[in-house]
Amino acid sequence: MKIVLSQLNYVIGDLDGNVQKMIKQISRAKEDQADLVVFSELSLCGYIPKDMLNYNSFINRCYAALDTLVQATEGIGVLVGMPTKSGLKKGKDLYNSAVLIENGEVQDTVNKTLLPTYDVFDEYRYFESNKSFKLIEFRGFKLAVTICEDLWNLDEPILYETTPMDELVKLNPDIMINLSGSPYSYNHVEERKNRMIDNAKEYKLPMVYVNQVGANTDILFDGGSMFINKTGEIAEELKYFEEDYRCVEWTKEETYPDNSLDYKDEDIELIHDALVMGIRDYFGKMGFKKALLGSSGGIDSAVINALAVEALGAENVRAILMPSKYSSEGSVLHAKELAENLNCPYDVISIKDMVDSIETTLAPTFGNLPADVTEENIQARSRGVLLMALSNKFGAMVLNTSNKSETAVGYATLYGDMCGGLSAIGDLYKMQVYEMARYINRNTEIIPTEIITKPPSAELRFDQKDSDSLPPYELLDAILLNYIEKQLGLEEIVGLGFDEETVRSVIKLVDRNEYKRFQAAPILRISNLAFGIGRQMPLVGKFNN
Amino acid sequence: MKIVLSQLNYVIGDLDGNVQKMIKQISRAKEDQADLVVFSELSLCGYIPKDMLNYNSFINRCYAALDTLVQATEGIGVLVGMPTKSGLKKGKDLYNSAVLIENGEVQDTVNKTLLPTYDVFDEYRYFESNKSFKLIEFRGFKLAVTICEDLWNLDEPILYETTPMDELVKLNPDIMINLSGSPYSYNHVEERKNRMIDNAKEYKLPMVYVNQVGANTDILFDGGSMFINKTGEIAEELKYFEEDYRCVEWTKEETYPDNSLDYKDEDIELIHDALVMGIRDYFGKMGFKKALLGSSGGIDSAVINALAVEALGAENVRAILMPSKYSSEGSVLHAKELAENLNCPYDVISIKDMVDSIETTLAPTFGNLPADVTEENIQARSRGVLLMALSNKFGAMVLNTSNKSETAVGYATLYGDMCGGLSAIGDLYKMQVYEMARYINRNTEIIPTEIITKPPSAELRFDQKDSDSLPPYELLDAILLNYIEKQLGLEEIVGLGFDEETVRSVIKLVDRNEYKRFQAAPILRISNLAFGIGRQMPLVGKFNN
Repeated sequence: MKIVLSQLNYVIGDLDGNVQKMIKQISRAKEDQADLVVFSELSLCGYIPKDMLNYNSFINRCYAALDTLVQATEGIGVLVGMPTKSGLKKGKDLYNSAVLIENGEVQDTVNKTLLPTYDVFDEYRYFESNKSFKLIEFRGFKLAVTICEDLWNLDEPILYETTPMDELVKLNPDIMINLSGSPYSYNHVEERKNRMIDNAKEYKLPMVYVNQVGANTDILFDGGSMFINKTGEIAEELKYFEEDYRCVEWTKEETYPDNSLDYKDEDIELIHDALVMGIRDYFGKMGFKKALLGSSGGIDSAVINALAVEALGAENVRAILMPSKYSSEGSVLHAKELAENLNCPYDVISIKDMVDSIETTLAPTFGNLPADVTEENIQARSRGVLLMALSNKFGAMVLNTSNKSETAVGYATLYGDMCGGLSAIGDLYKMQVYEMARYINRNTEIIPTEIITKPPSAELRFDQKDSDSLPPYELLDAILLNYIEKQLGLEEIVGLGFDEETVRSVIKLVDRNEYKRFQAAPILRISNLAFGIGRQMPLVGKFNN
Repeated sequence: MKIVLSQLNYVIGDLDGNVQKMIKQISRAKEDQADLVVFSELSLCGYIPKDMLNYNSFINRCYAALDTLVQATEGIGVLVGMPTKSGLKKGKDLYNSAVLIENGEVQDTVNKTLLPTYDVFDEYRYFESNKSFKLIEFRGFKLAVTICEDLWNLDEPILYETTPMDELVKLNPDIMINLSGSPYSYNHVEERKNRMIDNAKEYKLPMVYVNQVGANTDILFDGGSMFINKTGEIAEELKYFEEDYRCVEWTKEETYPDNSLDYKDEDIELIHDALVMGIRDYFGKMGFKKALLGSSGGIDSAVINALAVEALGAENVRAILMPSKYSSEGSVLHAKELAENLNCPYDVISIKDMVDSIETTLAPTFGNLPADVTEENIQARSRGVLLMALSNKFGAMVLNTSNKSETAVGYATLYGDMCGGLSAIGDLYKMQVYEMARYINRNTEIIPTEIITKPPSAELRFDQKDSDSLPPYELLDAILLNYIEKQLGLEEIVGLGFDEETVRSVIKLVDRNEYKRFQAAPILRISNLAFGIGRQMPLVGKFNN
């Protein structure tokens, strides 16, 4: 049997566009004389459609799109993911389904059993769980079709009572096919491969695993679809962060040589490619071509500037240098040098007069009160106002430049440097930003060395250094990783050997700044726990973990 | 048997504080010689604790708090809500539980079966569902103890396969006790009463129903706990939007006279009280005393000003009048008159010089490009900068002044008038804001009549009216209600008799402005579908419902 793994980048809700993409792939598969084309989870409507699923009109449009797709299946089978109506009198009204279509007709449907509802996933919000198991018969073969999470109950943690393949294997299938919507994170690539290999070995069955690719707002889908032998070797591994197509000729008897790609978790190259795709897709899918950013001469904006140029092209990225009286001469020079290295346009706009004018306006109300963080924030917000004005005037989206360490402890000004339509490095700790800068410079010096080597500073007052307010980033990042991603409490972190007062003060900063993150731009997710929908904390509450 | 309904306002995560509150109630109940005190759902930790539940350290603190509470139960039974460890090898590691404690010991535990995962609820994110049913034996009575949603599967829509009381009634209980965490919405008060009455009648059992009260960020819990006869009359109904305590003496044989309160759904008084509580609790629980708002002389800021004065006291609310060259003389006069009527401090700070300075700063970059929305936004953002500077300097929280109609169609400036720590009327359509203004003026003219009668305008250019850009609010609000709350698509709304082009343009505005709402302040929820966590839409996506 010839099976096509079709790894596409879908637009959520663009049913016509998605169907046209699929039809092209089906045509190609027909040329290859394929028997079956497999698309990914909820591919028809794009994944994750969220509350669009609550609209009957949206579900009806999915069915109409299926009607169109069905017309393209003369002589070929297609497995497509879509929401289907459950028709249940008791239970939610939708299933997350894989629908087999062939010869102009719907042939069979299977529904997802395990509904991930944690981190960025909320499938039980919409879907009812499947409770009966069957194989799909297709051209003399028995297919065990599952959807994403259905194959993730084999190893610890065992989150669900039922393990769908345990049920399906009793029916004696020939092959496993999984329609997946599995996002990238730097802890996830190896884990995903290993889990799927474990499934192949456990059930002694080959597996076709098809994932989607492309960024949908904050969630980055990396692709990496696979064909795995029943003995566990990855015989085909599709590209990461790109659309891909692979026609696999498979017989029940054969196994195929290991042909897996050589990526490792925490590979900075993968993170880099993920972020470039994330920026490109957010702009493309939102209908924007041009980006703006505040370029301070610091490392965060330098990395963003370089990533944006890769994603959008140098001519579409405009660096705005907005020095104040506290900006060092070096900062302006380095930011200019960076823009010149990247060959992207830049403007220098001093905020001095504007800040003076704001302070003059406020002087009668402020009276003789001493300067404090207010005046620092006025500078940051002045820059925000200028960036947003340029955004409005030139139709360019502002890229936010905050990293995860700053975002965590609130070392950023709401409506100031927190401005922007997208936070591209908001899931990178500061030390990862340095690593990314070095990766960007791997072949030639794009980011001036001084930007990488000088001590980090917000430059909102004279001689300010990040280290005046925060622990050294090596230490801060380590504490944050334990608190945010490993979800350890104070005592547990102290138990790892960290100083109690430092841990306490970091945790307090994280907790107190929930309200800022509540209003932050969407953050491209590259870890297994990013700020945003993946970490939902009460704004009011006493936090003393 | 004497049962105490204890309706308290908990602080999420403040285990010590919550336990101390409970112990006071238990003491009072002992004085009343009560047998049993019933607290509400997850009362020990406060509801909704969200991802705090993912921290083991948090769960351990809950158990430690239970140990303290247990010490106060000599001679009295207490039903308390808390997360408990499931100990399951397959399944999530927590239950949402009701724990019976008495005489210094845990006597029994029941777990929640039905886990709401829709709208603002996401319980399947954390909890495993109960699958076995038992009664709790207590002082010769058999108690059918359930938790909130467990009693909501009786009438349409039947979201779950299992109806817990159908199982429990087989065991022949004497009384139903429900620990609830049921938030207010203006469609919900009557519905909730009716559902609980239906349960009493269906199972021919009396019911003790205990809800929490108080606001946790955006979610407003109204209380309204009840004791219901097995024949369906509400014999006791506790206060709304206030803590309350009621000791009910109950015998199996008796029924008691109807003593229900006379509230109706969509009662503006309830909405008003909900919002006042919401403001008060958000400030109180966040540790703020003082509020600031931009007072434009328009109706939205007028209503906010009045509500804030009720919630926080006139001396704690400061109105900031920030006229520009486009502000009408009337606007400034009316805003002053309002502040004087409310007896709250106000400042007049002209934004003229600041706006000029910003435009001068940008002039070299803007060149000869014509004025457009950019210049309007500069004004709004200048006001945002001033408000935030005053907030920083004086430690006061900025109240956002957007209503639901504006928020829906994006008729607001990101980082401008969208600034603020809390959106108090962001779930009120414009026509509801008018209704609220009239309610505020019910006894005497607080909001000057001109503010209510003049045509709404953003005053960001000469002679601007909202009606230049938007349909009349009566029409706009009706379309929005159908699209957002009733989740109808274009064709369905047109089918109700609305003009297709108008509906299309309104829907397009709503969809295009998801990105703005993503960065909006938390919105006090008073409808059954508020912006925020209750409506989760993809930012990228094609919306053509």
